Amino acid sequence: MGFFSKDIKTMDDLFVHTLRDIYYAESKIAKTLPEMIEKASDAKLKQGFKSHLDETQNHIARLQEVFRMHGVEIEGIDCPAIDGILEEADDVAGEVADSRVLDAALIAAAQAVEHYEITRYGSLIAWATQLGRPDCANVLQKTLDEEKATDKKLTQMAESAVNLRAAS
Amino acid sequence: MGFFSKDIKTMDDLFVHTLRDIYYAESKIAKTLPEMIEKASDAKLKQGFKSHLDETQNHIARLQEVFRMHGVEIEGIDCPAIDGILEEADDVAGEVADSRVLDAALIAAAQAVEHYEITRYGSLIAWATQLGRPDCANVLQKTLDEEKATDKKLTQMAESAVNLRAAS
Repeated sequence: MGFFSKDIKTMDDLFVHTLRDIYYAESKIAKTLPEMIEKASDAKLKQGFKSHLDETQNHIARLQEVFRMHGVEIEGIDCPAIDGILEEADDVAGEVADSRVLDAALIAAAQAVEHYEITRYGSLIAWATQLGRPDCANVLQKTLDEEKATDKKLTQMAESAVNLRAAS
Repeated sequence: MGFFSKDIKTMDDLFVHTLRDIYYAESKIAKTLPEMIEKASDAKLKQGFKSHLDETQNHIARLQEVFRMHGVEIEGIDCPAIDGILEEADDVAGEVADSRVLDAALIAAAQAVEHYEITRYGSLIAWATQLGRPDCANVLQKTLDEEKATDKKLTQMAESAVNLRAAS
């Protein structure tokens, strides 16, 4: 990124570039989740993060499959967006002492991550379809569905038990 | 952030902290949109960004209203997440020469921004409700509805004309 100017010439270039961006992001999320599991107090939240770590490993494998299907090298590129989202999550978590407030902050951090993934997979699916690669779109869609389901579960937790405990 | 450890003690602290985070983010988005308007080629996309700049000014005014309603100082705090999302958008845009591919990249960048706002407003509304501030939640909900509508419009553009042109 940034070293070679005007490197993205076609929609295919943009597709591959974004695939590498989300590949880096998923890999970084997989490294960060164990820390979030450790920090979470609520048993349901802890378990939710554990399940999502398994899903994330699956998402990484699916991205590798798409790289192979599309005939391009499997590699990640720097993704300042996910770096910033995770840096902020870490900063905020570091400022919270109360375990109930920390759980609420962790849910919000996880939702910021989910929304980043949702937006990137959404773009990738639209572009794969337009590039005549419905096979790639189908694989990416499975992950998008899982990311959306995770975000929904986190919303339910944010609106119910965990935050009600924290506000009390 | 990071200079004063354990500064967020209560749900109210977390609410105010996140209010200041999104206030910084909205202000930065307002500064970035004129550049996106300039870069966009598609007339509908250019117009969409212009309308969103007006909306963003409104969102800033609404946040100031919530700060006043909640009796806390109106101020922003550093938000590495939006900095990273906008840095990445700028990096990618700088690498694209073809105006049609650039439009597709701009849509994706704008959707990443929208999703960041959607997730933060979602958390703020859940917390305001639990803190017994439905009045604040109502004001924030208006903005969330607009952010979701903008994201939906961008998805329609991503899935239709702009990208079809770019893939051709």
